[in-house]
Amino acid sequence: MTDKIARFLEEVRPPTPCVVVDLDVIRDNYQGLRRWLPLAQVYYAVKANPAPEIVAMLATMGSSFDVASRPEIELCLKAGALPERLSFGNTIKKQSDIAFAYDKGVRLFAFDSEAELDKLAVAAPGSRVFCRLLMTCEGAEWPLSRKFGCEIDMARDLLVAARDRGLEPYGVSFHVGSQQRNQHAWDRALASAAAVFKECGERGMNLAMVNLGGGFPTKYLKNVPTVKTYGNAIFKALRKHFGNRIPETIIEPGRGMVGNAGMIETEVVLVSKKSEEDDVRWVYLDIGKFGGLAETMDESIRYPIRTPRDGDAMGPCVLAGPTCDSADVLYEKTPYPLPVSLEIGDKLLIEGTGAYTTTYSAVAFNGFEPLKSYHI
Amino acid sequence: MTDKIARFLEEVRPPTPCVVVDLDVIRDNYQGLRRWLPLAQVYYAVKANPAPEIVAMLATMGSSFDVASRPEIELCLKAGALPERLSFGNTIKKQSDIAFAYDKGVRLFAFDSEAELDKLAVAAPGSRVFCRLLMTCEGAEWPLSRKFGCEIDMARDLLVAARDRGLEPYGVSFHVGSQQRNQHAWDRALASAAAVFKECGERGMNLAMVNLGGGFPTKYLKNVPTVKTYGNAIFKALRKHFGNRIPETIIEPGRGMVGNAGMIETEVVLVSKKSEEDDVRWVYLDIGKFGGLAETMDESIRYPIRTPRDGDAMGPCVLAGPTCDSADVLYEKTPYPLPVSLEIGDKLLIEGTGAYTTTYSAVAFNGFEPLKSYHI
Repeated sequence: MTDKIARFLEEVRPPTPCVVVDLDVIRDNYQGLRRWLPLAQVYYAVKANPAPEIVAMLATMGSSFDVASRPEIELCLKAGALPERLSFGNTIKKQSDIAFAYDKGVRLFAFDSEAELDKLAVAAPGSRVFCRLLMTCEGAEWPLSRKFGCEIDMARDLLVAARDRGLEPYGVSFHVGSQQRNQHAWDRALASAAAVFKECGERGMNLAMVNLGGGFPTKYLKNVPTVKTYGNAIFKALRKHFGNRIPETIIEPGRGMVGNAGMIETEVVLVSKKSEEDDVRWVYLDIGKFGGLAETMDESIRYPIRTPRDGDAMGPCVLAGPTCDSADVLYEKTPYPLPVSLEIGDKLLIEGTGAYTTTYSAVAFNGFEPLKSYHI
Repeated sequence: MTDKIARFLEEVRPPTPCVVVDLDVIRDNYQGLRRWLPLAQVYYAVKANPAPEIVAMLATMGSSFDVASRPEIELCLKAGALPERLSFGNTIKKQSDIAFAYDKGVRLFAFDSEAELDKLAVAAPGSRVFCRLLMTCEGAEWPLSRKFGCEIDMARDLLVAARDRGLEPYGVSFHVGSQQRNQHAWDRALASAAAVFKECGERGMNLAMVNLGGGFPTKYLKNVPTVKTYGNAIFKALRKHFGNRIPETIIEPGRGMVGNAGMIETEVVLVSKKSEEDDVRWVYLDIGKFGGLAETMDESIRYPIRTPRDGDAMGPCVLAGPTCDSADVLYEKTPYPLPVSLEIGDKLLIEGTGAYTTTYSAVAFNGFEPLKSYHI
């Protein structure tokens, strides 16, 4: 909780639920990444929080941007980002969207399949392309499926195929899983990246760039290593696998850039029990899985919660959202401890909610409006 | 696929993804429910699809409405529904929203806790209230958690408490789970309802109404019993548990009213493999979990899919959405068989998507727009 957010909530008293994002925290995060990963170019993963205020500020500070779709490209350009600082990082693109990006001046594209190369060759001729590698994600709290990337052998063949199509085989990317709390996860991934560099080199193709993806964690309830720890671990792994020929590197922080900058304020709508004998209370908030807390899916992300009664005796609660959907339960398998004195109407603060909340919000499920946000 | 939808897609050629809903199918569904459950008053569960076209048509046909929030109340009144035909069925309501509903003329409210009764006594004095019972949901494809309802003993005590607060204890409600394919599920629930009626009667309180909830299934890949089968099973169970004193009944169909009326058109964005040896293809669509297909969560609902190449040889596919979120995978644990000849750009039709698609759609996740809908 920053003073700025506390003051805003105190003075403005916005209707709940809402998320308040402190731009100063994002500025600090950006500078921390620049400081501890000085060799890496930062491409902010816009999908984590596409607020124009954030994009505009980061553009001014010199950040580049990882975009996932045509609307994200439009948003970044409108907020002042230069097209040569955009990377179209989604490996699944309509050819018409590639053509749009190319027309606007975007020249860096991700791919992980031959069919995507075919589209790129037609719609973005001569562009730099990088191939995403398939990774396992041990240690990540929001592990990735096999949805993105391809095996190493295929990556090598596809980079050759990219050259044959007149594209510039620029490098490889990977992603170690979101909210990755093990700084050594990058070591294994960099070993794979180096293997692709070597095999491409043997085919007369010198790759230039490794995109280290995102995965940098934000602090929820458990402590996470510092950016300095990550920076050092990644630099050591780069040295180990690339020796003196360290490639250009790109990082794509999303959660790590904006997660800890945001705070949701929500109201307790109901506290109840299912029978007189129950010792677990049900606490219903005016925000839930469909209103911005989608990442509580399978109870993956466990947010820290502050109440006005912290310090009182605590008791276990099932925490749920306000909709008539019975899947709209946040924490049930592992009940959440909250003060026994908690009452209807109490305002709670949910920390670490700057990433993946506003845009994950449903349009109007059960009639409830999407999450309101304030970027201050 | 109705002729009307086929003609619309052929003539209008709307950009994909979109959902097209045939109002004639909804009219038929309503008439079927009236015919085979003639004693029950139909309260359409607006959350399933709150399109004003649907609400307006059903209001004209005499339907009542189950609403979950203040915006749903506003929407129904604007579409021509009378306030005395609305049931505020959410057991989790802000007191200010109860007051809003009461002020507009709503006089029927759900509850399952003492704290909610306190709010109702203040904000909706003298209104009819019904207590939701906690049920298990064996046989449902989208089973409900323990989020709603209370145990039978507590329900009885709360109905007495409602009377003591000047409210009218009107009856009980339950929900057997969404997409309930076992028509006997209602029998067990009605036994509980009858027990509450009996215990309340012994305390001098004659309850009048049983709200049978929703749960009526729509046909996806598996066959489901007909409305006639359900109607007969429910009537038999009512006779069995209530004898000659059959109470007023309410049903709240949502999926059963609109599910089979809708059809999503989507485009294949990419077909790829992760390595040369893979025998499962990855097929990426321009719609996914965050664009309207949220009910594929845990692969719960398995939608029928038509392709322009049906009849060709089939092969297993992992089916995924277009976002950079690796959780945006529709079917992976059980791959989906699709024609091996499937190509990028092919238009697919996803059937049974009239319910829980438009409003489940994320605001702008990854920049993608919410699902567009056409009600014809």
